Amino acid sequence: MDKPNRSDIKSYFMSLQDDICAGIESLDGNGKFQQDLWERAEGGGGRSRVILGDKIEKGGVNFSAVEGHLPERISKALGLEPTDFFATGVSIVLHPHNPMVPIIHMNVRYFETSVGKYWFGGGIDVTPHYIVDEDARFFHNYLKTVGDKHDEAYYPHHKKWADDYFYIPHRNETRGIGGIFFDRLEADASHTKQDRFDFVKNVGESFVPIYSELVNRNHNRPYTEDHKSWQLHRRGRYVEFNLVWDKGTKFGLQTNGRIESILMSMPPMANWTYNHEIKPGSDEEITQSKLIKGIDWAK
Amino acid sequence: MDKPNRSDIKSYFMSLQDDICAGIESLDGNGKFQQDLWERAEGGGGRSRVILGDKIEKGGVNFSAVEGHLPERISKALGLEPTDFFATGVSIVLHPHNPMVPIIHMNVRYFETSVGKYWFGGGIDVTPHYIVDEDARFFHNYLKTVGDKHDEAYYPHHKKWADDYFYIPHRNETRGIGGIFFDRLEADASHTKQDRFDFVKNVGESFVPIYSELVNRNHNRPYTEDHKSWQLHRRGRYVEFNLVWDKGTKFGLQTNGRIESILMSMPPMANWTYNHEIKPGSDEEITQSKLIKGIDWAK
Repeated sequence: MDKPNRSDIKSYFMSLQDDICAGIESLDGNGKFQQDLWERAEGGGGRSRVILGDKIEKGGVNFSAVEGHLPERISKALGLEPTDFFATGVSIVLHPHNPMVPIIHMNVRYFETSVGKYWFGGGIDVTPHYIVDEDARFFHNYLKTVGDKHDEAYYPHHKKWADDYFYIPHRNETRGIGGIFFDRLEADASHTKQDRFDFVKNVGESFVPIYSELVNRNHNRPYTEDHKSWQLHRRGRYVEFNLVWDKGTKFGLQTNGRIESILMSMPPMANWTYNHEIKPGSDEEITQSKLIKGIDWAK
Repeated sequence: MDKPNRSDIKSYFMSLQDDICAGIESLDGNGKFQQDLWERAEGGGGRSRVILGDKIEKGGVNFSAVEGHLPERISKALGLEPTDFFATGVSIVLHPHNPMVPIIHMNVRYFETSVGKYWFGGGIDVTPHYIVDEDARFFHNYLKTVGDKHDEAYYPHHKKWADDYFYIPHRNETRGIGGIFFDRLEADASHTKQDRFDFVKNVGESFVPIYSELVNRNHNRPYTEDHKSWQLHRRGRYVEFNLVWDKGTKFGLQTNGRIESILMSMPPMANWTYNHEIKPGSDEEITQSKLIKGIDWAK
């Protein structure tokens, strides 16, 4: 297969995990990642790393590289012949203590079959408990800059994809302010495999600068019990998205993945209140009003 | 259609909801149910009732009777021709404050099509945070007595069905100590429609005596912060079951049901700890060891 090959990509993702963990430890100032190495009976394994820190209440940064025979149900769903597969990637979810700091998620991944197909996928999205417009603009403009360096069609296309993906149909609301989501990036007339990989690398390397900025802007802001209670309520929605709608989570739970690594994304604590009511004119109402698709934050 | 007809059954379920709410208020001693009436655009509606009490931290008792055209995806899955449908039932989940008191769930329901098919379904299951063997035996023997009055095949068949249904595959554990689960009970050579209905009534009417006994046995038992923490952990598993595996919840979320009524079953608060470890020899370990299928509690 063309360069970069699976070994190049795997090595890169391992070093990306190292760099991101170092960056988050430095940002947190106190917490240290604990690592679990795990192996998968059918082939491959991973390094799950979890931090319980001063600013990050609970965070997971997972690397995995797995291989084996692709279950027929999945190969069919992907429109592939029966095939062996190799998949590697880095997945992150960080839940902060301070409700003024957003939750962040990132995933970068590579998938390859023995029948000659491969693609890159990934995404990064931010879920503020309280939306700060300037922060949302900073985040989206950062992603637009990353995308534009590679292909000016990337950001608009991947931003819309994120709006559609990080969406909770049964609540008719987005999970947060979106970001980018992409899948099935392969070589084509205008992009080599290396081009696609370079873009994915840039996405991965944007994680620490983006989240550092969002944390540093907000982590000293004071908050009350009411703000904490809203945070636990929003985390309940995060759980609903992940368990009911997130394709990656569902795939993992239904195919005997490593459960603790898949569910690292769960918040440390979440609340459900029947018929939760939002005070008119409150900050919570303003945030809720912006949990919709199609806001052009990068303008 | 044979007696009892949909109107008889609907009326009965409404009075069952009334009786159960009165029984739970009496058991709680202080909490009162708040009611929301709701209507469904396509036809029908319901009465959602929620209690935030002294013994019951959060509980919901929902009645609904809905009708309309059955989405084709569902009629196909049920092996039916295109049809209108009518469905009515009562659903309950109660989350207690005291971790020594179990969570309880019950559902009784009736489904009817315009192409001449109908059936009853339902179930009742108990999820102790700490399993007490004598309580589990009391509960299962109660259900066995209810079943045996109607058909000695009911309890063994429905008990196994509950073991299989109230199961969390990705955790390889049962939700709790099971109970009974049944579906598609229609008239056959040995049961009239009235016979089936009489059984369902007996199941519904067993709810208050069963839960009253379980609460009264346990609600004065002292507990520590560690017990509370385990309760929040077990509630996390309850959330995982309901959002990932429960067919009723998934059906509701994917078909535009009334979300707040469907998710009344969510606990007020739940925790997720990465790689939660259980102390060898602890009460938690004993409970965990009994979250398996096939325990014959009624012997």
